[in-house]
Amino acid sequence: MLIMDGLGGLPREHGGKTELEAAYTPNLDALAARSALGFSSPAGPGIAVGSGPGHLAIFGFDPIEHEIGRGALEALGVDLDIGPDDVAARGNFCKVDKDGILVDRRAGRLSTPEATKLARILNTIKIEGAEFHIEPVKEHRFAFVMRGEKLSAELEDTDPLKNGIAPKPANAKTADAEHTVNLLNEYVKQVKDLLEEEDQANMILLRGFDRLPVLPQYEDLFKLRAASIAVNGMYKGVSRLVGMKVLPVEGYDIEDEFTTLEKYFDQFDFFYIHIKQTDTHGEDGDFDRKVKVIEYVDTQIPRILALNPDVILVTGDHSSPAILKSHSWHPVPALVYGKFVREDNIPEFGERACARGSLGIMPAVDFLPLLLANAGRIQKYGA
Amino acid sequence: MLIMDGLGGLPREHGGKTELEAAYTPNLDALAARSALGFSSPAGPGIAVGSGPGHLAIFGFDPIEHEIGRGALEALGVDLDIGPDDVAARGNFCKVDKDGILVDRRAGRLSTPEATKLARILNTIKIEGAEFHIEPVKEHRFAFVMRGEKLSAELEDTDPLKNGIAPKPANAKTADAEHTVNLLNEYVKQVKDLLEEEDQANMILLRGFDRLPVLPQYEDLFKLRAASIAVNGMYKGVSRLVGMKVLPVEGYDIEDEFTTLEKYFDQFDFFYIHIKQTDTHGEDGDFDRKVKVIEYVDTQIPRILALNPDVILVTGDHSSPAILKSHSWHPVPALVYGKFVREDNIPEFGERACARGSLGIMPAVDFLPLLLANAGRIQKYGA
Repeated sequence: MLIMDGLGGLPREHGGKTELEAAYTPNLDALAARSALGFSSPAGPGIAVGSGPGHLAIFGFDPIEHEIGRGALEALGVDLDIGPDDVAARGNFCKVDKDGILVDRRAGRLSTPEATKLARILNTIKIEGAEFHIEPVKEHRFAFVMRGEKLSAELEDTDPLKNGIAPKPANAKTADAEHTVNLLNEYVKQVKDLLEEEDQANMILLRGFDRLPVLPQYEDLFKLRAASIAVNGMYKGVSRLVGMKVLPVEGYDIEDEFTTLEKYFDQFDFFYIHIKQTDTHGEDGDFDRKVKVIEYVDTQIPRILALNPDVILVTGDHSSPAILKSHSWHPVPALVYGKFVREDNIPEFGERACARGSLGIMPAVDFLPLLLANAGRIQKYGA
Repeated sequence: MLIMDGLGGLPREHGGKTELEAAYTPNLDALAARSALGFSSPAGPGIAVGSGPGHLAIFGFDPIEHEIGRGALEALGVDLDIGPDDVAARGNFCKVDKDGILVDRRAGRLSTPEATKLARILNTIKIEGAEFHIEPVKEHRFAFVMRGEKLSAELEDTDPLKNGIAPKPANAKTADAEHTVNLLNEYVKQVKDLLEEEDQANMILLRGFDRLPVLPQYEDLFKLRAASIAVNGMYKGVSRLVGMKVLPVEGYDIEDEFTTLEKYFDQFDFFYIHIKQTDTHGEDGDFDRKVKVIEYVDTQIPRILALNPDVILVTGDHSSPAILKSHSWHPVPALVYGKFVREDNIPEFGERACARGSLGIMPAVDFLPLLLANAGRIQKYGA
C-alpha cells in the first residue's frame, strides 16, 4: 500500500493536466496498464478529510465511526509513544500575572527552542499515580500525555480561551474522572511553581482531552503481520493504532523508505509506505514541486516490483490540489495491481485515466478487502 | 440546480438516440466539456420515483426516510398554500341516492368546470375551530386541506372504495384525533346539505389524510439562502418544504423562469430551477416534443453562464422515456460544472456520454454535498 499523501490534484487551467497527469511517470504508467484503475473516496462526496480520517479509511476503517480527537492526533504527530490507556491533550505555554490572571494565552508565541527548554524542566515532575509528558509542537503549542492506571479523559479544558481571567482548574465531566482531576491539578500546581521565575511563559493551558481510539488490530482482523514505513510521526502513530509495526527508517528521504521496505520485506505480510511531500507541496500551492515528488516516487516503483509482491495499491489518503493549497474533497486516483486483478489496459496513471477505469469511485474502506482477496486471503462466503 | 423533469430517456429503436442525445444542444455540450459527467440515481437501482421523492432526493434528503403522503402531494400539486400544521387529503366528488348509499364514487367523472363550481360553493362553509378548503384537481378529483389548532391527521378514510354502501363517517385512529373527527363530520354534514339539490355530484369522499413532513431547512442545514423557480404548484411546494423561498415567475414560459433567475440572482446563494415540460412530453410518449423542450432549455444556458455561478448542476428528478410514457427507474444524466470540478473533457451531454463520466452513478442525495464542496462551503473533516 503506497500512499502518496494528498496525491489527487487539479489542472492549473481549463483543459490542462493535474499534477499526476503532468508528471513523467513511465513506471507507474506501465504498472497502470497491468492494473485496475479508479478512485478512492475517503469519506463520501464533497467531504475533504484530514490525514487522520483519510488514513483510517484507506486502512479499512470507517472514519466517521472511528474518530481520532485533536489531542490524540497532536500526540501522534510529535511521535509521542502513546497507548490506549493514556490521556492526551493539546497545550499552550501561556503568561499569567502575579494574581494568576491570563495576560497572554500564547506567551508571545515563544520560540520552539524556548518551549523545548521549558518542556525539559516540566518533564522532571514526578507525581505518584501517573506519569506526565510534554512534547513541544511549535512555538507555544505542545502535546500533552498523562499515563497511569484508571485515568479518564472526561475532563473539561483548563484553557478558558480568552485572556483576562485565570486558567480553569481541571474539572471532571463524569464522577469517575475525579481521580484524574486530582492528579492533574497537582501536576498543574507543580508546573506553576517550576515556571514561577520564567519571564515569557509561566503557566500552561490544556484543551481537548481524549484517548486514542481503540481500533481492531490488523493481525486479529485481517490475519496480517503488517508494517508501516513513514518518516513523520502522525502516520507512524495512525498505523500503530491499527496494529502495524512501525519500522525504523534510516534517513529522511523517500529512497530511505524504499530501502526499509527491501530490508524488511520477508518479515511481514503487508506494508504501508507513506510519502509526505506530495501533500506538503500541494498545501503550499507548489504544483511543480508536487510533480517532481511524484516523478521521484515513480523512479522507486521498480524497487517495489523487484520484490514481487502479490498485490500493489497506489493511491493517496485524500487529494491536495496545488491550486487549492489545501486538502480537498476530490476522489483520489487509485491503482490496484496483482496477478488476478482484471487489467483495464489503460497505460496511464492519472485522474482522467482513472475515470475510465473499472473500479469506479470506490469508498476508501473497500480497498483493503479487495487487496486481501487478490492476495488469496479471503474465503468464499456461503456454499 | 437546473432540473429538467423526467430528463432521462431511451432510444426509440435499437441503436438509436435518447431524447437528450437526439436534441441539438450546443450550449449544454460545451458546458459538458468543462464539467464532470455521470448519473443521478434518485432512490436506487430499479426504483422509479414520483416527483415528490425525486425532488427530495436531489435536494439532498433521503426519499425513503422522508415520505410525502399522497394527500399532501395533491395539495402541493394544485398550489394550495399548506403549512406543517395543516391536514391534507385527496377527495372525490361522488353521487349518493336518497338513502345516502353511494351509486357512483366518481359522480360520472363530472367536468372540471363543474367541479370548480361545486368547490366554490363548499369553500363558503364556516365552522368554528377550523378552516376547510377544496381545490379541484381534474374531473371528480380534488385536494382537501383543513387548517386549525391541534388538528390530527390520524383519520380513517371516509371513502369506502366501492359503491352500494354509504360513505363512512370520519373516524379517529388515535384518541387525540377526536377533536378533528368532530370538526370534519360537521363539515361533511354541511357539504351534504349544500349539495343536496345537485344532480351529478351531491357528496364528497376523502382518503389519505396526512400532514406535510417537517424537513430540515436549507438555511439551517446548509447555510444557504435558497430560492426556487418553478411554474407548477407541486415543485414550489416541495421546494418550500426544505426552506427555499419560492420566487414569483411572471409568465408561464421557460424563458420567464430564467428571467426570474436573472432578476433575483444577487439575493440568494442557491437557485433551483424546474422545467416541467420534459416530463409532460415524456409521459405523453411524445419523443419529438421532449427533444424540442430540451433544445429550448439549451438556448437558455448562456443566460445562466452570464451570471457566473460558482457551481452548476444540470440533471432531472427522474427519467421519463417517451417510449415508456411514464416515469422510469433509469439513472438520470447529470453534469456538474465549477471552477474546481475535475473536467472529464467529454464534449457532449447525453446518456452514453454520461456513462463515460467520472461521477459514475451517484445517489441523488450525494449531489448537494458535492455542489457545496465545490462552492467552498464544506469544512474539512478531522485533522
